[in-house]
Amino acid sequence: MTKDYDELNPSPRLLMGPGPSNVHPRVYRAMATPLVGHLDPEFLVIMDETMELLREVFGTQNRLTIPVSATGSAGMEAALVNILEPGDQAVVCVKGVFGERMSDIVQRCGAELFRVEGEWGRIIEPEQVEAVLKRTRKPKVVAIVHAETSTGVLQPLEEIGRLAREYEALYLVDTVTSIAGAPINVDAVGIDVCYAGTQKCLSCPPGLAPITFSDRAVQVIQNRKTKVQSWYLDMTMISRYWGSERVYHHTAPVSMIYGLREALRIVHEEGLEARFRRHRYHAAALAAGLEALGVSLAAQEGYRAPMLTLARIPEGVEDRAIRSRLLNEFQLEIGSGLGVFAGKMWRIGLMGESCRRSSVLICLDALEACLRDAGHAVAPGAGVAAAEAFYAKTRPEEMPIA
Amino acid sequence: MTKDYDELNPSPRLLMGPGPSNVHPRVYRAMATPLVGHLDPEFLVIMDETMELLREVFGTQNRLTIPVSATGSAGMEAALVNILEPGDQAVVCVKGVFGERMSDIVQRCGAELFRVEGEWGRIIEPEQVEAVLKRTRKPKVVAIVHAETSTGVLQPLEEIGRLAREYEALYLVDTVTSIAGAPINVDAVGIDVCYAGTQKCLSCPPGLAPITFSDRAVQVIQNRKTKVQSWYLDMTMISRYWGSERVYHHTAPVSMIYGLREALRIVHEEGLEARFRRHRYHAAALAAGLEALGVSLAAQEGYRAPMLTLARIPEGVEDRAIRSRLLNEFQLEIGSGLGVFAGKMWRIGLMGESCRRSSVLICLDALEACLRDAGHAVAPGAGVAAAEAFYAKTRPEEMPIA
Repeated sequence: MTKDYDELNPSPRLLMGPGPSNVHPRVYRAMATPLVGHLDPEFLVIMDETMELLREVFGTQNRLTIPVSATGSAGMEAALVNILEPGDQAVVCVKGVFGERMSDIVQRCGAELFRVEGEWGRIIEPEQVEAVLKRTRKPKVVAIVHAETSTGVLQPLEEIGRLAREYEALYLVDTVTSIAGAPINVDAVGIDVCYAGTQKCLSCPPGLAPITFSDRAVQVIQNRKTKVQSWYLDMTMISRYWGSERVYHHTAPVSMIYGLREALRIVHEEGLEARFRRHRYHAAALAAGLEALGVSLAAQEGYRAPMLTLARIPEGVEDRAIRSRLLNEFQLEIGSGLGVFAGKMWRIGLMGESCRRSSVLICLDALEACLRDAGHAVAPGAGVAAAEAFYAKTRPEEMPIA
Repeated sequence: MTKDYDELNPSPRLLMGPGPSNVHPRVYRAMATPLVGHLDPEFLVIMDETMELLREVFGTQNRLTIPVSATGSAGMEAALVNILEPGDQAVVCVKGVFGERMSDIVQRCGAELFRVEGEWGRIIEPEQVEAVLKRTRKPKVVAIVHAETSTGVLQPLEEIGRLAREYEALYLVDTVTSIAGAPINVDAVGIDVCYAGTQKCLSCPPGLAPITFSDRAVQVIQNRKTKVQSWYLDMTMISRYWGSERVYHHTAPVSMIYGLREALRIVHEEGLEARFRRHRYHAAALAAGLEALGVSLAAQEGYRAPMLTLARIPEGVEDRAIRSRLLNEFQLEIGSGLGVFAGKMWRIGLMGESCRRSSVLICLDALEACLRDAGHAVAPGAGVAAAEAFYAKTRPEEMPIA
């Protein structure tokens, strides 16, 4: 009963896993701003601004564009439970952990699941989706992950979106890892439901799930015959709080919204195109460095997600020991492999505030030391030198945005 | 596109609504602590300590005692969706908005709802519950709200808990508003599922829902024939992250957990009994002041929740105008009435950090000014004088804890 608890004192970390990424001090400061009430007129203005800024990063004019009051995975659930009713047909593209998770949720909705089976580390081709669509009767939704956090693949979205429209299905895209790190263009691509997370390229702590619904999706929700199975995630009710009616639904997580607004403001100041180029730029430098260290990349060439690099753990190198050493000696977090990639891959994130030259150099230097001690032959300084050579010959403005 | 967004600059508020309450600077500072990853060994220690501290405020030894990664209402949903399967019978005590909300969620679970109809502003009597239990075949759960945030009533829990056990049903209690403000005693009372919120008497910003499950409840979950309809709130998966296995489920809201740990640490330092007495003490002073202002209280005498006082808006006084004036001139937030009490009641919270002598005096002084200007006859200084008279003759140690 009389146990004492010490002051919170976690070690400073360079966060280069699959998220959370490092957070700008301005975001922490915003989160430490004293609360106003969730129905305070001043908070309603903050909500409106947050919605505006979210529309900008999603690339949409959708009115229903808000942060769900829970983490990215709740965004996935909110997207699916609002759209699907029991007996509906849902086509889900599965090429990693998060496609599997979508499939799980689809089944919990009582919907009929049609899986497009992809390969880990590769994109899904439109023909694969079409083959499955042909087996459906009346598909309600086609769902896919943009940047698969388990494989580091960035999935092209346009063609599959066209197919979804052709089959009169809603197009649902997971952008948890890509948002603010690669172009999404919800309206231009024709995405109907798009959700994201805050703790990756937005560099806001985890705790909210930005989401947007097209008018077409809103209509589908309005035409439901059954209630949404989740009260907490029921968009018809939540939209009355975020809309002009301001009807109380649940108490908004005020501090997290303060933080998200500030993170979005930082993105707005940098500009999306500059931010996308920055992610490509440092990812290219990291790739050059890893190659020089003899570490190969797992994701299909030409479709590598700029914010998350999947690196194959070299033969004979022990995953867990190296990640512990990176954490303890270098204060550096990188991610372990997930699912079929567990123990085989490292996931190295360069997201938002973590995406900078110093991160690339620290990571390459630390990995080199660990790999050498693990018996992997590496020329001294090879990784850092290769990255520096890339930086010397390339300027960020020369990078493509996608 | 080039619109500028100003620095976040909300007005300082004295928060005396139904939550959020004011937050201690130590909690804000904890939330502004730079992130570590959600699987960082240092974070796992922070999780363990948070669970220990939560057990203390719940009054339980339950192993499965964690914060759900969303606000209090998600705690309600997590409690119900994990316990209920389609076709199960659920008895819900309804005496305000939050009992209604429970009923809604029960139906979304496909369970059969048995309502115990209570009166707004009064407790539910055990006989009322028993009469409904007799109509059930095999009730899975009896659910009730401890402190009804819409009515300001503090419900006695023991007798109804005994009935639940007699009928072999789980006992599920909402302590969103009461936690850390009035005794809960999960184990002593025999509560099987108990959830709470952070933004009331814990004085942590909204965003998490502490929850605890007895071994009996865990067994019921383990024996389910169907999957929990919510992936995000599925306790069998979440408990593997918070338990010794540390299996990734979703990215924990690290900053909010930092804040919750600090808020719990402050509660731990004050001591629960002193904290309960403090809530009773200032509630009594507020009640004396309101009475002197000619404002009557709505909740049944003897069962008034110490952290939330329902005050009847005097005849001819306009609700909205006065609340706006309190906010704009006095920087003071009080709550409006909910449901059938909308426009008829004010909800005045004295929760956690907001529960102090200065809050009572500011509120009584501000209300007096507003009431007088609205044509309500009040002797100058009557409210504050009555509260001060109470403080002069009573010491907090003399107050009962329940």
